[in-house]
Amino acid sequence: MIIDRLIERIKATENPTVVGLDPRLNYIPSFITEKYYAKYGTTPKAAAKAMYKFNKHIIDAVFDIVPAVKPQIAMYERYGIDGLKAYDKTCRYAKSKGLIVIGDIKRSDIASTAEAYSDGHIGRVNIEGMEYEGFAQDFITLNPYLGSDSITPFLKDCEKYEKGLFVLAKTSNPNSGEIQDLLTDGVPIYEKVGALIEKWGESTMGSHGFSSVGAVVGATHPEQAKRLREVMPHTFFLVPGYGAQGGKAEDLAVCFNSDGLGAIVNSSRGIIAAHMKDEYKTCFADEQNFALAARQACIDMKNDLRRCI
Amino acid sequence: MIIDRLIERIKATENPTVVGLDPRLNYIPSFITEKYYAKYGTTPKAAAKAMYKFNKHIIDAVFDIVPAVKPQIAMYERYGIDGLKAYDKTCRYAKSKGLIVIGDIKRSDIASTAEAYSDGHIGRVNIEGMEYEGFAQDFITLNPYLGSDSITPFLKDCEKYEKGLFVLAKTSNPNSGEIQDLLTDGVPIYEKVGALIEKWGESTMGSHGFSSVGAVVGATHPEQAKRLREVMPHTFFLVPGYGAQGGKAEDLAVCFNSDGLGAIVNSSRGIIAAHMKDEYKTCFADEQNFALAARQACIDMKNDLRRCI
Repeated sequence: MIIDRLIERIKATENPTVVGLDPRLNYIPSFITEKYYAKYGTTPKAAAKAMYKFNKHIIDAVFDIVPAVKPQIAMYERYGIDGLKAYDKTCRYAKSKGLIVIGDIKRSDIASTAEAYSDGHIGRVNIEGMEYEGFAQDFITLNPYLGSDSITPFLKDCEKYEKGLFVLAKTSNPNSGEIQDLLTDGVPIYEKVGALIEKWGESTMGSHGFSSVGAVVGATHPEQAKRLREVMPHTFFLVPGYGAQGGKAEDLAVCFNSDGLGAIVNSSRGIIAAHMKDEYKTCFADEQNFALAARQACIDMKNDLRRCI
Repeated sequence: MIIDRLIERIKATENPTVVGLDPRLNYIPSFITEKYYAKYGTTPKAAAKAMYKFNKHIIDAVFDIVPAVKPQIAMYERYGIDGLKAYDKTCRYAKSKGLIVIGDIKRSDIASTAEAYSDGHIGRVNIEGMEYEGFAQDFITLNPYLGSDSITPFLKDCEKYEKGLFVLAKTSNPNSGEIQDLLTDGVPIYEKVGALIEKWGESTMGSHGFSSVGAVVGATHPEQAKRLREVMPHTFFLVPGYGAQGGKAEDLAVCFNSDGLGAIVNSSRGIIAAHMKDEYKTCFADEQNFALAARQACIDMKNDLRRCI
């Protein structure tokens, strides 16, 4: 089960941190962007090539100290086909370095359409008997608003190809409560979704007590996260919102069990744009050292998390 | 406003039908697939080229009698980068023929990530002062589970570039009720979402009484659709579920106002795979005529809808 591989890597690195590979052009040092602008002009192709090069440096600097990376596909889809090529190459390169790849795609659709997404992202596409893998992700994120028949088509590929899901339960954004916190029979929607996620995970239970169907639970809502940790004992959490969005290590300790397992915490700009932050600028003044700043930020985040869990 | 352009095209064609361009390889006549398999092998590239060619034939056969097409991006994403190239080309070709393009992408993410999707799908991406358009869609579909801050980033591009949205309210699938029908203060979630959609549309009101922020309302739930039509007077409906999923013209009449406006009804396989259905097989026996069968299915659907609305 992929969830076991994730947990084993978390144990090996002693670090429940996932690096959000969500590059923006203004994060990328000019020695990288200028090279591609010179070659391809200030075009989406150049931007995409610079993003991949940037990611590659980051991956090379952190692959031995974190268990996983989470590229956010929107940041690449922004640049159309060129951007998606950079997404694809980023996933493949991260996998080649032994990292678990969580594709943050938040797709949602029903029945045979969900099957098409599953084929392209975690399964195989069949063309006249030949099988092809699409985007090389280990986990993908999904949105549950459409109900079980938008999730179950992915489960058979999770079983067949050792893949996993993280389904949105309670997200980290300020307006997440508009729908997710509404009460039905005294129970909030995110908790109803939590119960569904537990059920969807039954066929992919791993050997550490967690299934390969996890939940996205924002770090910015500690009370809700605490409740969800209780009602979803077999569900691993992917926790966004640490750092830039305001979530603190103290707040997200509730996402973990007493053995320190149960969650993986994402940080994107806090790591990949560390070289732009005052606290790292002095030590990593030369822009050539941007990836070393990211490495230091991973170590600092690990220590911050381990202080609390 | 793009909603006015859509309504004017519906009036001109007297046909509230949108053709779902969701090709599967088994829909595509062998004279098309064989050509590309011979050239590129049985590869994703060949599949994608065959899909685009198939779509092009369909578009050429229907562009003068329907207002819009709705390519479902999952069917293309299934084939990775090659598939997405076919999606992109399909959108562009449909636009060049004067059709309104509704990209069925059901994306969902928050804040700056939603902005990235908006840039890539309905806005512009800025690279060192140069602006580029991504996928050439007029409307896109979005999933509302994350709340207002997952939708509002798209609104400024709707205003600036005359684009529109269709946000999921009540979907057509059997399990749609698991979350969408849950009651909160006696009101179902889909109705709460409906009220949000009305509000999100306020800044893009067109001249026919509808805003450019529409709602997806399944044809398979007539009671709910009737209620939504009442509580969302300024919201245009995109109605999936007609035909193959079981929705009948009689059922979806409630989505329309007395003047025959208010909704556009999608059919995918009922049109693009009409050549495989018994009722069209005899008249369009030669597989070269598959697009003519699609045209006839559009005319039959128009007559079926107009009988009831």
